[in-house]
Amino acid sequence: MELYTDAYFMNEAMKLAQIAFEDGEIPVGAIIVCRNKIIAKAYNQTEKLTDVTAHAEILAITSAANALGAKYLTECQMYVTLEPCAMCAGASFWAQLGEIHYGASDPKRGFSRLTENLLHPKTKVTSGLMAEESKALLDKFFKKLRN
Amino acid sequence: MELYTDAYFMNEAMKLAQIAFEDGEIPVGAIIVCRNKIIAKAYNQTEKLTDVTAHAEILAITSAANALGAKYLTECQMYVTLEPCAMCAGASFWAQLGEIHYGASDPKRGFSRLTENLLHPKTKVTSGLMAEESKALLDKFFKKLRN
Repeated sequence: MELYTDAYFMNEAMKLAQIAFEDGEIPVGAIIVCRNKIIAKAYNQTEKLTDVTAHAEILAITSAANALGAKYLTECQMYVTLEPCAMCAGASFWAQLGEIHYGASDPKRGFSRLTENLLHPKTKVTSGLMAEESKALLDKFFKKLRN
Repeated sequence: MELYTDAYFMNEAMKLAQIAFEDGEIPVGAIIVCRNKIIAKAYNQTEKLTDVTAHAEILAITSAANALGAKYLTECQMYVTLEPCAMCAGASFWAQLGEIHYGASDPKRGFSRLTENLLHPKTKVTSGLMAEESKALLDKFFKKLRN
């Protein structure tokens, strides 16, 4: 079995962020990987679903649990193009997510600015992968929105 | 039009917590009220839906937005039998919920233990209504679970 890299997976998440952008949504994409296989793909759909809870991470966690038939995602990795907010960090806590890899930081609503203990103690976190591409896409979205 | 009291609405939320209890779910119920009318009712369904995000508050926020056809719940009040966790507090932030009335405090995972700034600055919070009834039902659930 071919072993995919973190860069490969984050690039898959970026493709989903691009779809969100094209749909007029704040461009954030997320995937969940389990044993080197993508088991869930999602992008932000708060506008389309008229639902503030429809962040990429929430949809991905729900979808991953459905794929596994299990609530807990301890053996899974999430790749998300933007730092999760408190809601999504809280969801990852309940899911006991194994790892979170996020791209761009979110200085306004990122969980790490709020408090350290939103994540499950077992969840490992890395950040910065494709951060520039993610931030560029977000900036493009908000610039377009203002015009 | 009859004006309902906070006690009436919290009692409606308690009825939903009771349904959760009977379904073998951690017994938490939530309703969302808009202009003195209940527009959403939900109870914790994490077991039934195999989904850690299916807390009463998340389901109620999604349902209320659907009922209103609008993402923001600035004119709405949530009545929930247990203090919301970080995930649900974070969801209420995005929804810009007008008011949260919660019953029992959650010393372990309640949002107020984590950080003050999880809620939207415009969200008013009260607590303690039917707190004893809510805590008694939760205690009964966990006692049953251990036996």
